[in-house]
Amino acid sequence: MKSFMDKDFLLETETAQMLYHEHAKNLPIIDYHCHLIPEMVAKDHKFRSITEVWLGGDHYKWRGMRTNGVDEKYITGDSTDWEKFEKWAETVPYTLRNPLYHWTHLELKTAFGIDKILNPSTAREIFDECNEKLQLPEFSARGLMRHYNVECVCTTDDPIDSLEHHIATRESGFEIKMLPTWRPDKAMAVENPEAYRQYIEKLSEVSGISINNYNDLLDALQKRHDFFEAQGCRLSDHGICEFYAEDFTESEINNIFNKVMGGQQPTDLEDRKFKSALMLDFARMDARSGWTQQFHYGALRNNNSRMMAQLGPDTGFDSIGEWNTAIAMSKFLDTLDKENLLAKTILYPLNPSANEMIATMLGNFQQGPTPGKIQFGSGWWFNDQKDGMERQMNALSVLGLLSRFVGMLTDSRSFLSYPRHEYFRRTLCNLIGRDVENGEIPAEEMPRIKQMVEDISYYNAKNYFKF
Amino acid sequence: MKSFMDKDFLLETETAQMLYHEHAKNLPIIDYHCHLIPEMVAKDHKFRSITEVWLGGDHYKWRGMRTNGVDEKYITGDSTDWEKFEKWAETVPYTLRNPLYHWTHLELKTAFGIDKILNPSTAREIFDECNEKLQLPEFSARGLMRHYNVECVCTTDDPIDSLEHHIATRESGFEIKMLPTWRPDKAMAVENPEAYRQYIEKLSEVSGISINNYNDLLDALQKRHDFFEAQGCRLSDHGICEFYAEDFTESEINNIFNKVMGGQQPTDLEDRKFKSALMLDFARMDARSGWTQQFHYGALRNNNSRMMAQLGPDTGFDSIGEWNTAIAMSKFLDTLDKENLLAKTILYPLNPSANEMIATMLGNFQQGPTPGKIQFGSGWWFNDQKDGMERQMNALSVLGLLSRFVGMLTDSRSFLSYPRHEYFRRTLCNLIGRDVENGEIPAEEMPRIKQMVEDISYYNAKNYFKF
Amino acid sequence: MKSFMDKDFLLETETAQMLYHEHAKNLPIIDYHCHLIPEMVAKDHKFRSITEVWLGGDHYKWRGMRTNGVDEKYITGDSTDWEKFEKWAETVPYTLRNPLYHWTHLELKTAFGIDKILNPSTAREIFDECNEKLQLPEFSARGLMRHYNVECVCTTDDPIDSLEHHIATRESGFEIKMLPTWRPDKAMAVENPEAYRQYIEKLSEVSGISINNYNDLLDALQKRHDFFEAQGCRLSDHGICEFYAEDFTESEINNIFNKVMGGQQPTDLEDRKFKSALMLDFARMDARSGWTQQFHYGALRNNNSRMMAQLGPDTGFDSIGEWNTAIAMSKFLDTLDKENLLAKTILYPLNPSANEMIATMLGNFQQGPTPGKIQFGSGWWFNDQKDGMERQMNALSVLGLLSRFVGMLTDSRSFLSYPRHEYFRRTLCNLIGRDVENGEIPAEEMPRIKQMVEDISYYNAKNYFKF
Repeated sequence: MKSFMDKDFLLETETAQMLYHEHAKNLPIIDYHCHLIPEMVAKDHKFRSITEVWLGGDHYKWRGMRTNGVDEKYITGDSTDWEKFEKWAETVPYTLRNPLYHWTHLELKTAFGIDKILNPSTAREIFDECNEKLQLPEFSARGLMRHYNVECVCTTDDPIDSLEHHIATRESGFEIKMLPTWRPDKAMAVENPEAYRQYIEKLSEVSGISINNYNDLLDALQKRHDFFEAQGCRLSDHGICEFYAEDFTESEINNIFNKVMGGQQPTDLEDRKFKSALMLDFARMDARSGWTQQFHYGALRNNNSRMMAQLGPDTGFDSIGEWNTAIAMSKFLDTLDKENLLAKTILYPLNPSANEMIATMLGNFQQGPTPGKIQFGSGWWFNDQKDGMERQMNALSVLGLLSRFVGMLTDSRSFLSYPRHEYFRRTLCNLIGRDVENGEIPAEEMPRIKQMVEDISYYNAKNYFKF
Repeated sequence: MKSFMDKDFLLETETAQMLYHEHAKNLPIIDYHCHLIPEMVAKDHKFRSITEVWLGGDHYKWRGMRTNGVDEKYITGDSTDWEKFEKWAETVPYTLRNPLYHWTHLELKTAFGIDKILNPSTAREIFDECNEKLQLPEFSARGLMRHYNVECVCTTDDPIDSLEHHIATRESGFEIKMLPTWRPDKAMAVENPEAYRQYIEKLSEVSGISINNYNDLLDALQKRHDFFEAQGCRLSDHGICEFYAEDFTESEINNIFNKVMGGQQPTDLEDRKFKSALMLDFARMDARSGWTQQFHYGALRNNNSRMMAQLGPDTGFDSIGEWNTAIAMSKFLDTLDKENLLAKTILYPLNPSANEMIATMLGNFQQGPTPGKIQFGSGWWFNDQKDGMERQMNALSVLGLLSRFVGMLTDSRSFLSYPRHEYFRRTLCNLIGRDVENGEIPAEEMPRIKQMVEDISYYNAKNYFKF
Repeated sequence: MKSFMDKDFLLETETAQMLYHEHAKNLPIIDYHCHLIPEMVAKDHKFRSITEVWLGGDHYKWRGMRTNGVDEKYITGDSTDWEKFEKWAETVPYTLRNPLYHWTHLELKTAFGIDKILNPSTAREIFDECNEKLQLPEFSARGLMRHYNVECVCTTDDPIDSLEHHIATRESGFEIKMLPTWRPDKAMAVENPEAYRQYIEKLSEVSGISINNYNDLLDALQKRHDFFEAQGCRLSDHGICEFYAEDFTESEINNIFNKVMGGQQPTDLEDRKFKSALMLDFARMDARSGWTQQFHYGALRNNNSRMMAQLGPDTGFDSIGEWNTAIAMSKFLDTLDKENLLAKTILYPLNPSANEMIATMLGNFQQGPTPGKIQFGSGWWFNDQKDGMERQMNALSVLGLLSRFVGMLTDSRSFLSYPRHEYFRRTLCNLIGRDVENGEIPAEEMPRIKQMVEDISYYNAKNYFKF
């Protein structure tokens, strides 16, 4: 019987162990998509307690606690740090087989050097030990990033963001790059005219462009795009339910824009036309700047109105949706390809039953000289666990070229999430090692195999994004 | 090489074997959803022959025989018991890798103590031995339930059912609980106005309420709901293609009701509006009574008109459908949650490609103090086999809390189906045992792991349903 | 560690090895669906070079090269054979875990006796050795078919095809049967009126029937169907996105036909009605002739307009679609079943998330005396690899009868693709062998198990198609 989470955790064969320990473990981390709060890096945030780190914003853990019957008071309510931690520690033993169990213990081990199993009987000592360590300078936001050998992180930022914390961080001489990512979801959200109008007003302000029609909107956005570019941004990101590829005319889009700005609700078709147009325009901006565009699609969000009213979005009430979006996705990508304005693209489906569709969609638009120009994004959100990662990598392997995969990202708000890269690399090495040992990959090609592991762990991202 | 179906059948590791034999095997069975015929329990039915038990109503076997090229005469026709059994015995060797092969031999072994492999050369002796044993008192309906250590069964019953057999069984002092389940599909079926009107007339009769509008309908149904409650019912069940969550007004629903009662066909939208309304009203009744509501969705039924005309429904001509129902499901659950009338709920998808959607939908509506308030139902119908059970449990594990799962049910018409609980428990122990042995679950947490196995096998259902 | 691709490649247990070597390996190949060019068989084509064989038309390899960043010039451009081969050899090491890696080395080994790993350092010697061997008479089109123990192939042919090469091949006394398959996709393609009219004119010519309405169309097609039948055709094939089962009237269909022939674009609904009607009529022709009908559905084709304009269809720009087609498929099959005109049918889904739907759809229409009358086609196109084959066989196993499966086909344009049958048989034996060794299939039934392997490898197809 293997010990829990020992040095060969998830590595079932000797080849897998060799690949991981000699070719993956020590490579730096390029975390090209995350949700860190830039201010925390700029100010090198010190954490009050392990509760702040773990339970301050982690809706995975919140969902786990709710499922375990814990009262909301101990989850997002005004209980003390210890009370919340205690409830989490009571829940942990019920999360066996859920990735939360692995994340929890991998974080305890790699950040705090704690090998104990978290449960009610160890809760207090672990709470105290973590909190004590969190007071040490090496446990600050930047300290943790250094500890985990991070080379670069890309945050997720609205076009109207001042990026002041990115600038301050860079100017502080911090040796780890923190770059912004252009995430213009709010500029698309015409389904809520009142909020949209307010957003456009702010955009007008920060861009210095008076926005009276759709073309003005594009001008203002382009100006901000240029600003992001100047601050080192090389990536965009879009959170969408499905792809939009309705036919439209310029005047239709202008009319929809004016209608929404005038406070009227667009029809469903108008909403889709507007999104179709703006998504194309965003894509063109990215292509012209040589950026990579990312699409995170397929989430069904804010399902629980009662809790939405109480806690707002991103608090653990989202789930996997069901949309047939292949035709629209194809049309969207093709429209850009025809104009020779298809940027490097990463597609992240949320529903794993779309894995095979995506893995084959890539091939329709691959084109030299960029290897793996169109990417199947690493297991996203709910798929960010062993089974999800394996399914993503297996689909990509048999339907595309795993060798060209840009690999893992944390997608996380937490400075303790970097062990997910370790988890990913172990899973990757395990898949490849198993194939080598059972004769499906030739051991004679070991130099190539080792390079492949190093590429997916680090070098592919380095060469693809060129941060 | 392991022997076929020996004591460690499906248990690949020592930990799995220990967990099953010491913590799962001997626990009683709570079969909270089945299709037993209550009269057979009330009258303690004796079986004429193994053909009656096995081939009298088992459409899984019928499908297997049809696929094997057997003439319908030997399946549902007027052949003798021996002739039918012989054809089944000829088919069995062609069912290798199908769950029928395992069910057949597990039932022979656990009910009749027969270790032989069923095939044409053993058919006669097995037929004779089974039939001889079926004459013994311990092979009656109740005898078999006792033999399999059943504690409670929940049948599936129409609101107009008198429940006389439930009452008679209880009054007979039978030590195993047989409770009714409220399954009001016919009260929803406005797509067939003539049959609907007849059904409403019967409902009016048994409820003593004259039904002239939608409110009368609700009154009559509530009266029957109260009657079911008084007879120990704690569960409802709904067989639906997809979820319905159309917007509607009271007067629309009333008009649709009147239109249908007047013999007119509702439009597709009217049909959906009516179902949207009535499903909510049923859900409210369940919530007010503290019941658990079950939704079995996604079956495409009665595909073969020729055989439907010949044999009627539920004769083996149903299959897995394809519906994108996540949005409607979410809206339905949210509507109830907003009213604080979301009952404990079990969702059973038929298409396993919806597993991940469902496993994440749960989390949107989990709420203390009930652990696992919203449940992902055990592998249903076609998924009621090792691969289907594993996929359901793996999806639930990584996207929810397996620890809080209420576990297995037979969904069966047969008194010989209880070994499915054994099969499920073996599969469960195998998954957990494997994780322990490869270091993904810590062996240090063995008391919790053992409790988890016992909970999923028995205690979770006991605490959740409180029969 | 197992050696790469040794004699027990993919065979993980002793039982699997025995089953493969003693019961599968030496059986002839019935390749009942392929895309060989009949003229190449008729004229016993000699190949110029390995580049012609491998890179002349294999869009799997083209996609791999494009993903690897290779310039189109070296893929479909006017580079030399060596230049193209060199680029392919550079790409091969990047295809680890993709089926291309296995196909490449299995073809080198079984056709050319080359055990070397293809990569840039071996490229030249392998290129030269293959090209030298390709000059030998046993490496002609017919030579390769003999080498691989092919018994029969079914090509894919348009109704207006003269079948001259089939006739010439048969008359030449070639001992391997080459039969045509009726693939009337162009007769359905009313979405392109101009091309449609031209096609109908040619059909009119070859059939000798003046086509002025839908009934004339059917007469002309029936005449060609009879001609195909006379040339040994026993199979039809249809490439469709989804199933069509709209209601229609005769006069509607006639009007749509006339509209399209008059050069007008049909509406989407008209297009679907026409396809619904013609698919039924094709199906009736097949049923009356005792043929088997095949449906390859679910491909999203020609996604890249730029490359479509440059290279035409079938050049590597197709992918897996997303359609919910179960209801239409059921209605289509049921309509035919009601008329007692449901032919033997093979359903090939492209999206593997439809595997379970298909595997259960079969059971709705199975009917004696033909075992496995309705078939779940072997892993198609992108699914034609180990994972895809295993998923197809596992779904079929648990939801239908694997024993009655007609097994593998190449679906290929290449005379080197026959090792896919070897690959399939190894995968099959591995699945069954594993089940035997872990006690899920009784070793006592070994004669049946061996027969099952032989049946799926060869005899089921022989008995089902009766070529």
